Amino acid sequence: MTTGSRQRSRQQHDEIAHYLRTAIREGSFQPGDELPSEAELTQKFSSSRGPVRQALAALRGEGLISSGRGRRTVVLDNVLTQSFDDVISFSQWCRNAEIVPGQRTQWVARQPAERSLAASLRIADGDPVVSVFRLRLMDDVPAMVERLNYPLEVGRHVLAFDTDAGSIYQELLDRGVDIDRASRTIDAIGANEEDAKLLEVPVGTPLLRVRRRAFTGAGEIIESSDDRYLPWKASFTMNSTRGNPSSMSLVSTEHTAPA
Amino acid sequence: MTTGSRQRSRQQHDEIAHYLRTAIREGSFQPGDELPSEAELTQKFSSSRGPVRQALAALRGEGLISSGRGRRTVVLDNVLTQSFDDVISFSQWCRNAEIVPGQRTQWVARQPAERSLAASLRIADGDPVVSVFRLRLMDDVPAMVERLNYPLEVGRHVLAFDTDAGSIYQELLDRGVDIDRASRTIDAIGANEEDAKLLEVPVGTPLLRVRRRAFTGAGEIIESSDDRYLPWKASFTMNSTRGNPSSMSLVSTEHTAPA
Repeated sequence: MTTGSRQRSRQQHDEIAHYLRTAIREGSFQPGDELPSEAELTQKFSSSRGPVRQALAALRGEGLISSGRGRRTVVLDNVLTQSFDDVISFSQWCRNAEIVPGQRTQWVARQPAERSLAASLRIADGDPVVSVFRLRLMDDVPAMVERLNYPLEVGRHVLAFDTDAGSIYQELLDRGVDIDRASRTIDAIGANEEDAKLLEVPVGTPLLRVRRRAFTGAGEIIESSDDRYLPWKASFTMNSTRGNPSSMSLVSTEHTAPA
Repeated sequence: MTTGSRQRSRQQHDEIAHYLRTAIREGSFQPGDELPSEAELTQKFSSSRGPVRQALAALRGEGLISSGRGRRTVVLDNVLTQSFDDVISFSQWCRNAEIVPGQRTQWVARQPAERSLAASLRIADGDPVVSVFRLRLMDDVPAMVERLNYPLEVGRHVLAFDTDAGSIYQELLDRGVDIDRASRTIDAIGANEEDAKLLEVPVGTPLLRVRRRAFTGAGEIIESSDDRYLPWKASFTMNSTRGNPSSMSLVSTEHTAPA
């Protein structure tokens, strides 16, 4: 197979997946509807079966369509997926949900990394980091407290940016920072005094916590963050189908109860 | 393409994905290692490129390997994925984490569905359901409270089962119930009096809540459950890579703050 046909095949499965995702999201295929058969899709896209199957495998992994074992493939009834931009950017996520994002920066600091932050960023204790602490709003209502930390090389772009102006993520992309992937850990934590004051809730209110690390393609860590959502403002949803391993894992943690 | 070769191709991409997953999980490929190239994999499995690409697309969706844009594909450093069994079954999940699962059944009841449960199971108000309330243990220590609800047709298998004996999920599978997919919603909630007593924590302690609905292949709802974990016992993790939509979505919720 030539490089040309390889390239063509890559584009095709992306094109087919994009077509199906869009049709599902826009309601052309409703929950419970059968998808066109492999044969119909190969014909529609003048494709071989390989790209069609790759596209279907991708949509199964995203929880959009059924497992297809021994029956036709149908659209599932919870068809949300999230782009990588939405994973990283609160501003972007809000806009896609037709919510006006907002922020009130509490402080931006260049400071030495304390031990656990240094470990999370894989730098030495006391190496300089840039930290941002913001309250985030959804339609002008407090929804989340955000603690962002960057190694200095990335953080210098943040120091030069007006953090009340909007998306730091977009600014970093514009500055050429290669944000390629992210890992997230989700749990629950009670609001501390700082959280409680900004979110206007009592201390101890259960919050949905999302800790995130972002990486370049080469594996360098460029962000370590801690977002705490009011649970009546946001929750996570996910579909899983038999035969498709889930990319979200419940993991047992070794911690003991906080004192 | 004949049915025979279609079947063969299906098996091949599963085989290749299984090989790579196992090699990653067992450490034959370490985080940061490059995967074999497409050409090497096609040769190793006497395969065409289609199945190899399907397998790689599946692993990308699972967050196991990098996006591969313009560079070799590498193993990511957070390589957990979760099988469908683990998603549904606390017992199975514990065993895979080398934890001894346990349970103390508080009660099992056949009762009429109250309004919100009826809506969740898509049955009429007052239709009979079978409900189970159990404390779950990890290595003999309280870790989660579990509320399971089944429509009667499924629940009759549960009524006949010793719920202190272990996995209800396994029992339902053994009885031929077709559990094909599940949707989960994750948020945080404070322990109520019942939760607090069983988990041996103060009322209001933040818990990680997982609400799940399970479906047959035909889309019938066969379970609606509410699991509440001590957050120092379990958390969720997930990898996302640029260009691959995430199957876990953060969704904005319309609720107002609890009174």
